[in-house]
Amino acid sequence: MPSTSPYHELARRHARLHRIGHASAILAWDRATLMPPGGVGARAAAEAELQLLARELRTDPAIGALLDAAAQESLGEWETANLREMRRDWIEANAVPAEIVTRRTMASAKCELGWRRQRFDNDWAGYLPAWREVVALSRAEARQLGGTLGCSPYDALLQRFEPGIDSAQVSAIFDGLTTWLPTLIAEARGRSGALVPLGKVDIETQRRIARSLATRLGFDFQHGRLDESTHPFTGGVADDIRITTRFREDALLQGINSTIHETGHAHYVAGLPAAWREQPVGGARSFGVHESQSLGLEMQLARTPAFCALLSPMLIEAAGPRAAFEPTALYARMTRVEPGLIRVHADEASYPLHVVARFRIERALIEGEIEADDVPAMWDEQMAELLGLDTRGNYRDGCLQDVHWSRGAFGYFPSYTLGAIYAAQLFAAMRAALGDLDALVADGDFAPIFGWLATQVWSQGCRFETPELLRHATGSALDAGPYRAHLTVRYGGLTADATPSR
Amino acid sequence: MPSTSPYHELARRHARLHRIGHASAILAWDRATLMPPGGVGARAAAEAELQLLARELRTDPAIGALLDAAAQESLGEWETANLREMRRDWIEANAVPAEIVTRRTMASAKCELGWRRQRFDNDWAGYLPAWREVVALSRAEARQLGGTLGCSPYDALLQRFEPGIDSAQVSAIFDGLTTWLPTLIAEARGRSGALVPLGKVDIETQRRIARSLATRLGFDFQHGRLDESTHPFTGGVADDIRITTRFREDALLQGINSTIHETGHAHYVAGLPAAWREQPVGGARSFGVHESQSLGLEMQLARTPAFCALLSPMLIEAAGPRAAFEPTALYARMTRVEPGLIRVHADEASYPLHVVARFRIERALIEGEIEADDVPAMWDEQMAELLGLDTRGNYRDGCLQDVHWSRGAFGYFPSYTLGAIYAAQLFAAMRAALGDLDALVADGDFAPIFGWLATQVWSQGCRFETPELLRHATGSALDAGPYRAHLTVRYGGLTADATPSR
Repeated sequence: MPSTSPYHELARRHARLHRIGHASAILAWDRATLMPPGGVGARAAAEAELQLLARELRTDPAIGALLDAAAQESLGEWETANLREMRRDWIEANAVPAEIVTRRTMASAKCELGWRRQRFDNDWAGYLPAWREVVALSRAEARQLGGTLGCSPYDALLQRFEPGIDSAQVSAIFDGLTTWLPTLIAEARGRSGALVPLGKVDIETQRRIARSLATRLGFDFQHGRLDESTHPFTGGVADDIRITTRFREDALLQGINSTIHETGHAHYVAGLPAAWREQPVGGARSFGVHESQSLGLEMQLARTPAFCALLSPMLIEAAGPRAAFEPTALYARMTRVEPGLIRVHADEASYPLHVVARFRIERALIEGEIEADDVPAMWDEQMAELLGLDTRGNYRDGCLQDVHWSRGAFGYFPSYTLGAIYAAQLFAAMRAALGDLDALVADGDFAPIFGWLATQVWSQGCRFETPELLRHATGSALDAGPYRAHLTVRYGGLTADATPSR
Repeated sequence: MPSTSPYHELARRHARLHRIGHASAILAWDRATLMPPGGVGARAAAEAELQLLARELRTDPAIGALLDAAAQESLGEWETANLREMRRDWIEANAVPAEIVTRRTMASAKCELGWRRQRFDNDWAGYLPAWREVVALSRAEARQLGGTLGCSPYDALLQRFEPGIDSAQVSAIFDGLTTWLPTLIAEARGRSGALVPLGKVDIETQRRIARSLATRLGFDFQHGRLDESTHPFTGGVADDIRITTRFREDALLQGINSTIHETGHAHYVAGLPAAWREQPVGGARSFGVHESQSLGLEMQLARTPAFCALLSPMLIEAAGPRAAFEPTALYARMTRVEPGLIRVHADEASYPLHVVARFRIERALIEGEIEADDVPAMWDEQMAELLGLDTRGNYRDGCLQDVHWSRGAFGYFPSYTLGAIYAAQLFAAMRAALGDLDALVADGDFAPIFGWLATQVWSQGCRFETPELLRHATGSALDAGPYRAHLTVRYGGLTADATPSR
């Protein structure tokens, strides 16, 4: 095919967008890690300008005709998948008028700015006016996008994060969780004993531990960095991945767990198909699939007795011997179940119920079943029902705890738990293929595990939509069974009624 | 004037360019300071893409008509100066066909890549073929730009770095230096005694010293960072200035001097007129004026007995007492004159002669009086004549020592010494206004000094061209007299025949 074909012209434009995205990614990383405070205004303007440039390139009217013409070309499988992703991008970029996007972005920025203070002050009444505006504009955006895609407003937002999965599926899966998870949590709480006190570990020692842990887990410092930020994240680009963690003297495992988590994200990014680096098909499949790789490493692989046995001597070497560094003490700490108000501090078993509550609330909100003003009441009701917690009047640790809704990032929350479910399904299939993973983990031999993930997930990029990716990797459709089995074995201490996850 | 006026449309476009420039500046800083080595390919592509985007915006054909229409508007003084700088940018961006720019950029990248090895190997024959290409394309570029500007090819390149100054002026000033500077250097060498040995200072201590020194000299860490790179530089943007330095255990003063030097650059950037932040008129006047601010701080202010008295207790506090930290020992070390082969290691008195040699060679080369092949011979001749050094056969420490020519950055070198001359002239005027600076420096009271520079230079941005800026600040035309006086007092130990600089 000649290099001037419509497909190649589209590919050229997407390579350009990718490079602008590279600049945006580094600017955002820099802002979150080491930018001096006085740089915030100029940086916001520069980042907004790059976004505007990208939007102009993505909405160039010529693209519509190029997409139609490229569809007539004789393309290979990957090129066809790439064209599908290009069309998805085109539809999404054009569905919502620029004016609504701009107003929503500005309303979100204003709301988030107020939220930083209002959350701290537990000031729901102060927060509400700006947030009503975010909700109204997010609904308008969702209606526009849904109109173009032929789906409900909330489904339209959901597909930005998890294309190929709709809210009916999510709802069915999440409702399923609520039939057995609260019971499992109650059982696990009943069996929780006292933890061996861990004490403090100085930050410099924690940095050394995090660095050697990331190295051990295959993070490539020739193609990436490990830094610190208020909220851990994975940024940068495939050849230069910037992961961050955070340290607190009295919370050693927090820094360790986020290092492991972000290393999982980093593996996915590094393993995406190099030949398609600058193209949509070479990107991460979805937020949920991304999360399946971080949670795969953190929950499936590292939150195990075998990994605790590997971690224990690393901690002792770095910080000296402590009773709390013994493998059994570490494992007991990592798997303690104790429902609490804050999602990001939740244990593995409680976490999905935080997500279920948020999904139900944001779906009702975007579909117009409730209003912004009704959110605290629904929050109280959901937290009581799902986690047995009383949140009345506590907005700070209630519906104001996360930044997502202030930013208008509705549709994002389900990805966290979908990721956990995908991870369990993938690791169950991996065990069927590789046999006992514990022996590999105990030896620190992660190569077969990462090799399987690289083949089945990382190198697939956006070749498939999520449901097909799972079927291709595991031989089954999306199935929450392995997730139930995994949690039941780990926290129920009983034989699971599905295939045990270990 | 309505916000849709041609002038405002131009201002809008330049604000956009400024923000893209912000992104480019941060990407370049990141690359030079902390990017992992594996990121180099993707980063080069992203940086090139931003440059291409900027070029597209700068060469949009609509700009020509906007400039003509804006010239008919009734504009204030600053707007008029801004329009002049916008037109300069337009002419420069359009004078050279994109194809030549692209070929020159690629040839430079290739030449520089080879140079890294060939310099090390003293391999002039290996270097020459790629460099001939750079020279040919740089000449083509210079001819095109000179044709548009109505000046000689070398003058066209020179005005990129030093607008308002032509090579006849530079030549006259530089020839003037050669009539007295070699004699002064010979005298200073004759009087140089043995230095008190300094010994090693560990890097962590040097980092602390550099940080407290920058703070003492007014660097604002709320709006900037101090990091490390192979070659010190000042990057970032006005509200977020990124200076770098470098440390070697056995070269304490190197890290200190570059910290002072870059802090001078940072003051200039921070002091540029905030109201014109995103406009051409709000930018730095020229490379020479920029250098006058770094050299003003480094050579005029800090390389003095008064500053050494201030620095001495800082060093003793950080690294413990040493004889070499005594003020007189520090000053003797800072002002030692010993001509050597390498420009970046040259003492203050020898440095300008390195620049004179380069100016003569690059001017002859771009004007076609010599060929690339002739450069080593002319180098040997100039170094013998100006500095009494034998460089025959030593390409590594000779004409291959700097990266500028490999990159095609012809016309840059004069700025270094023009900056030193401007600095001497500015500081002589400052002394006439403020009286004895030594007393202020000894007290660490830099506020009056920076206040004068802020008013006379920093806040002026590109309101004037360089010669007018100097006249406005000092009451005189460009004059190398104060520079001669400064060097003569410091290194001659005799009464200067012009106004003494102190």
